[in-house]
Amino acid sequence: MRSFTAQLAERVLAGQAPIVIGLDPRLDALPKGLLPGATPALRIVEFYRRALPVLARHAPCVKPNIAFFECFGGDGYRAYEQTCALAHQHGLLVVGDVKRGDIGSTAAAYAEGHFALADALTLHPYLGADSVAPFLAACRPEHGGRGVFVLVRTSNPGARDFQDLEVDGEPLCDHVARAVTAWGAELPRAEGYSPVGAVVGATWPHELARLRSLLPHSWLLLPGVGAQGAKVEDLAAAFDARGLGALVNQSRGVMQCFEPDATDWLECIDAAAATFATECRAVAHRQPHQGSK
Amino acid sequence: MRSFTAQLAERVLAGQAPIVIGLDPRLDALPKGLLPGATPALRIVEFYRRALPVLARHAPCVKPNIAFFECFGGDGYRAYEQTCALAHQHGLLVVGDVKRGDIGSTAAAYAEGHFALADALTLHPYLGADSVAPFLAACRPEHGGRGVFVLVRTSNPGARDFQDLEVDGEPLCDHVARAVTAWGAELPRAEGYSPVGAVVGATWPHELARLRSLLPHSWLLLPGVGAQGAKVEDLAAAFDARGLGALVNQSRGVMQCFEPDATDWLECIDAAAATFATECRAVAHRQPHQGSK
Repeated sequence: MRSFTAQLAERVLAGQAPIVIGLDPRLDALPKGLLPGATPALRIVEFYRRALPVLARHAPCVKPNIAFFECFGGDGYRAYEQTCALAHQHGLLVVGDVKRGDIGSTAAAYAEGHFALADALTLHPYLGADSVAPFLAACRPEHGGRGVFVLVRTSNPGARDFQDLEVDGEPLCDHVARAVTAWGAELPRAEGYSPVGAVVGATWPHELARLRSLLPHSWLLLPGVGAQGAKVEDLAAAFDARGLGALVNQSRGVMQCFEPDATDWLECIDAAAATFATECRAVAHRQPHQGSK
Repeated sequence: MRSFTAQLAERVLAGQAPIVIGLDPRLDALPKGLLPGATPALRIVEFYRRALPVLARHAPCVKPNIAFFECFGGDGYRAYEQTCALAHQHGLLVVGDVKRGDIGSTAAAYAEGHFALADALTLHPYLGADSVAPFLAACRPEHGGRGVFVLVRTSNPGARDFQDLEVDGEPLCDHVARAVTAWGAELPRAEGYSPVGAVVGATWPHELARLRSLLPHSWLLLPGVGAQGAKVEDLAAAFDARGLGALVNQSRGVMQCFEPDATDWLECIDAAAATFATECRAVAHRQPHQGSK
C-alpha cells in the first residue's frame, strides 16, 4: 500500500487538480428532496452517497470535518465513518478534519481510532512534539503510510490572536512551521514531500511565500477559499514548479452551491467542482513557483 | 438551572472535594469479569454504570476523555454519550475532555453537539477568540450556563515546545492565560469565578502561583497527578482561602487502581477515590492561598 503522500503526488502529477473538497454537512443546506423525514445521519450519508462519485471525477481528496457529524451524536459519528468508507470506495483519499491534539497516551488513542477511518488527519500543535508523535509513527510506511496536516496558520480572523505573537523577531506560527519541518525530517518523502503537512489559511495570501519557504517539504492544506473570502488566483506561491505541494480546499462553495429545493443539485456540484478544479490546476502551474523540488 | 460554575462552587463549599475523576476507558484495564465477550462499548458502559455511583460519593465531577471512546468508532461515541448521561443520573457534573478547537462556524457545531452532553468542555486556544466564542456564548446563563477550560499549560513534556516560547519577556502560555481572563471578563461570576477556566498541568507546580495570579477568576483544571508524576501536596497555590478555584484531576490512579482480574475492583475504586478526595481537600485548605476572593 502506497503512502498518502505518494498517492497524492501521483494523482496530481497524473493531471488531477490539487484540490480537496470539504464535507461539512449542514441539514439546512441538504437537498430538500433527499430522504425527507429520515434522520439527519441517514440524510447526510445519502447526500454523500450520491455526491462522492461526482466529486471523484474532479478531486483526488475529500476532507470531512467531523464537527458537522459529531453534532448529531453517535448516529452522526457513524455517518462520518460511513462517509469515509464511501469516499474510499470511490477511490478518493480522505483527510479527516478532526483537529485533535492531546498528551501522548491520549494522542495514541486518537491516532488509532482516526487513522482507521482516514488517510490523513489535521492536528493541533499547542501540546508539542509528544502530542504529535503517535500520529507521526503512523506515517511510517511500515505502519500505514498515513499523513498529517498540523495547524500552522489558520484561516480565521482569530488566527492573529496567538499565531502573530512575536517570538525571537518572528510570529509564533513561523516557529510552529519550523517544528513541522523538523517533525517531518525523519520520515520518508514522496516527490520531495514528507507526510507531515501544514494547514495554512488561504485567507493570508501575503504570508504564503514565507510559510512555503519555512515548510519546504510539507504539503500545504489551504482552507478559506469561497465562503471565507480567499481567492484561488492568490495562491500560486504555494505550489512548486510541477504543480505539487499544496491542496486548495473548498467546502461550502462546492457542496452548498445550490438552493435546497433545487432538483439538479448533483449537476450543480459537478459544475462547481469542475470550475474549482480548473482554476486550481491553472494557478498551480502559474509562475512564480516556490517550495520543494 | 444553575450554571456549571455555580454548582461546582456550591458543592465544594458544601464539603465535596475539589476533584474530578478522569474517565479514560482502556479495554486492558477493565475488570476481566465484566461482561466478558461483550463488545468494547458495552463493557465500557457497564464499567461506568457500576463505578459512577461510587465516584459520586467522593467527587463533584467526572471528566470523560472522548479519545478513549472515539477509538471504538460510532459504538464508542455512543458509549461516551451514555457515560455522560449516567454521570448526570448520579448527580455528577460532566467535564467533556474533548479538546476541540476550530474556526467559528465549525466551533459552533462542536459547541452544539458537545454541550448537549457535557456541562463543561476543554478547548484548544491556538485559533484565537472567534474559535472560542461559540462556546462562551453557551456559558451565558440564558444559554445554558456551561463552562469551558482552555488549555493554557498542559501536563505533558511537549508543553515546553511552544508554551514556553518567550513573547514580550514571558512565556506564550502566560499570554494565553491573559486571554482566558479577558474572555471570561464579560461573563457572570459565581463565588468569584467566571465560566472560563483553564487547564494547568499539575506537573509544573513551580508555575502554579504565577498562572493562578494571571487567572484570578478562572477555575483551574489540574491534570497530571498519579501516572504523570505530579503530587497533590504541591498544588496548594492553586486554591483560594475558601478552598475554591481548582479541580485536581486523577484518571488512572483511581480508575485503574486494581488488577484486571480483581473481583473487589469497586471497593478498590471507592478506596482510591476516598483517599484522593481527602488529600485534595486537605491541600485546598492549606496556606498559603492565592487567587480570587
